[in-house]
Amino acid sequence: MSEVGAAQVLAISGGIGGAKLALGLYRVLGADELIVVANTGDDFEHLGLHVSPDVDTLMYTFAGINNRRTGWGREDETWTFMDALGQLGGETWFRLGDGDLATNVERTRRLKSGESLTGVTQDFTSRLGIHARLVPMTDDPVRTMVETIDGQRSFQHYFVKESCVPAVVAFRFDGAQSARLNPVFLEALNNPGLRVVVICPSNPFISIDPILAVPGVRNALIEWHGPVVAVSPIIGGRSIKGPTAKMMNELGLPATAGAVATHYGELIDGFVLDTTDSSQANNVEIPTLCTNTLMKNLEDRETLARDVLNFAEQLRQESGVV
Amino acid sequence: MSEVGAAQVLAISGGIGGAKLALGLYRVLGADELIVVANTGDDFEHLGLHVSPDVDTLMYTFAGINNRRTGWGREDETWTFMDALGQLGGETWFRLGDGDLATNVERTRRLKSGESLTGVTQDFTSRLGIHARLVPMTDDPVRTMVETIDGQRSFQHYFVKESCVPAVVAFRFDGAQSARLNPVFLEALNNPGLRVVVICPSNPFISIDPILAVPGVRNALIEWHGPVVAVSPIIGGRSIKGPTAKMMNELGLPATAGAVATHYGELIDGFVLDTTDSSQANNVEIPTLCTNTLMKNLEDRETLARDVLNFAEQLRQESGVV
Repeated sequence: MSEVGAAQVLAISGGIGGAKLALGLYRVLGADELIVVANTGDDFEHLGLHVSPDVDTLMYTFAGINNRRTGWGREDETWTFMDALGQLGGETWFRLGDGDLATNVERTRRLKSGESLTGVTQDFTSRLGIHARLVPMTDDPVRTMVETIDGQRSFQHYFVKESCVPAVVAFRFDGAQSARLNPVFLEALNNPGLRVVVICPSNPFISIDPILAVPGVRNALIEWHGPVVAVSPIIGGRSIKGPTAKMMNELGLPATAGAVATHYGELIDGFVLDTTDSSQANNVEIPTLCTNTLMKNLEDRETLARDVLNFAEQLRQESGVV
Repeated sequence: MSEVGAAQVLAISGGIGGAKLALGLYRVLGADELIVVANTGDDFEHLGLHVSPDVDTLMYTFAGINNRRTGWGREDETWTFMDALGQLGGETWFRLGDGDLATNVERTRRLKSGESLTGVTQDFTSRLGIHARLVPMTDDPVRTMVETIDGQRSFQHYFVKESCVPAVVAFRFDGAQSARLNPVFLEALNNPGLRVVVICPSNPFISIDPILAVPGVRNALIEWHGPVVAVSPIIGGRSIKGPTAKMMNELGLPATAGAVATHYGELIDGFVLDTTDSSQANNVEIPTLCTNTLMKNLEDRETLARDVLNFAEQLRQESGVV
């Protein structure tokens, strides 16, 4: 199990996009040096099970058992459950593989027996041999609601069932205001050994904003003495995976790296964007790093992780917090 | 959906052994002519799921998707869930295949949403194209408890986890006294078209007795004007499948077909035993039919079903209830 005291890096991440950089950080850092706070705004109850997609994507990714083709779920997966469920008239729009189902069934059983999502996740990651600490942003239910031009939907309804087709108007994070921030987050920030907070290249609106909506997160990040560095999920006006660019267009924002930096505003002390977008750097009022942020393979992930860490060290030196 | 009014045969059955004859009856009878009341004494909550083994064995058998090798579960099954569950430290002693899991997850979800086990089973069987009515003995929880020389166990603990090793002393059916009998049972008996009640060759102690323990069953069978025919699960002093003979030895009973007839006593009007056991027929005070009761293939199942139905017709004629 990872100790908070040894952590040098605190990463904030959603699922697929963010997990790529989180994996890079995981691989270049030593044991217990990484803490990842995961979005749970897209958790939901489905088939009577507590589904926690971002936590699981990060967990499977660190354990090396993630499905590289889909970006979610497990490798070497089978789909007998979904086929049989369809035969019995069950809902099949949200695909749960047979192995993935074990995570969801066992988590649900343990949550119902009184354990916390943090506790169950810690045990699962430990059993899977993961040497980083992975925690949900909160153990309380937060549910992302999507207001679209066709009306309001729960997140997975919008994201999976409707494939993000209806144009978005706004997002709401039900339960966030009364959610208790995972204490590991503040413990990590209070640890003198922590060197950087990394906001992974996840969708700002549906992966990072739910975390920022939990009371205490924004202030803690602003007040923390060290550098908070965000990595742009937008490269050349497009999102590599997922609907980030589409959403920005629908929200009336330019789909640019610069607009992502503006979105995070005073929260961040440094911004990492792709060399393709170097012209955008001029529009960003904080220090920037232009580098290759397109992570096609494992080497790319590790290289970007090192770039981000070096950039953060540079920011520390410049601000005198070394 | 099968209508009670069309039913000519009411079968009482547990899982594996009983399902063989139940399938024979299903195949030789026309649509809606068979009603099967299934044991739910070995139902249990496992992994947060409502598992109903006998109902499912009968359902899969009628649908032709049962696993012929194991006698339980589904054919063409995969086991990715169990493997992944083991990785996460979950309990793996009760084997739930990936397809079987769909039945259990969807049933649990629907039961929690307020549907009855009868209702869910009716919908599942209808979706699987089954043209018989399959009902649990009750929608209320009845749990078979096994008193052994090593102490008391819940049924699946004894049956699966301990492979029936500890010698049995007695059985208890927790909840049976307050369980409400499935109304389909009495409706079927009150239907003037019903010609026979068949007690399938299931284990009398753990598959049939739980059904008989539900208030109203014994009296209704005794008072019913038509023939109640039981088929012996013991052939030549051995149980073909399962621990029936072992249990009879442990309970101090002779492991014979005759002892099974004695166990049912006044409940039955006719008894079917294997030709191997023809000498036993002399010890049985009610009419008997000696025939081949060892069901190795589908033809055997259908032949025995026809033999049982013909025997019942003969009993009806002899007693003048035709």
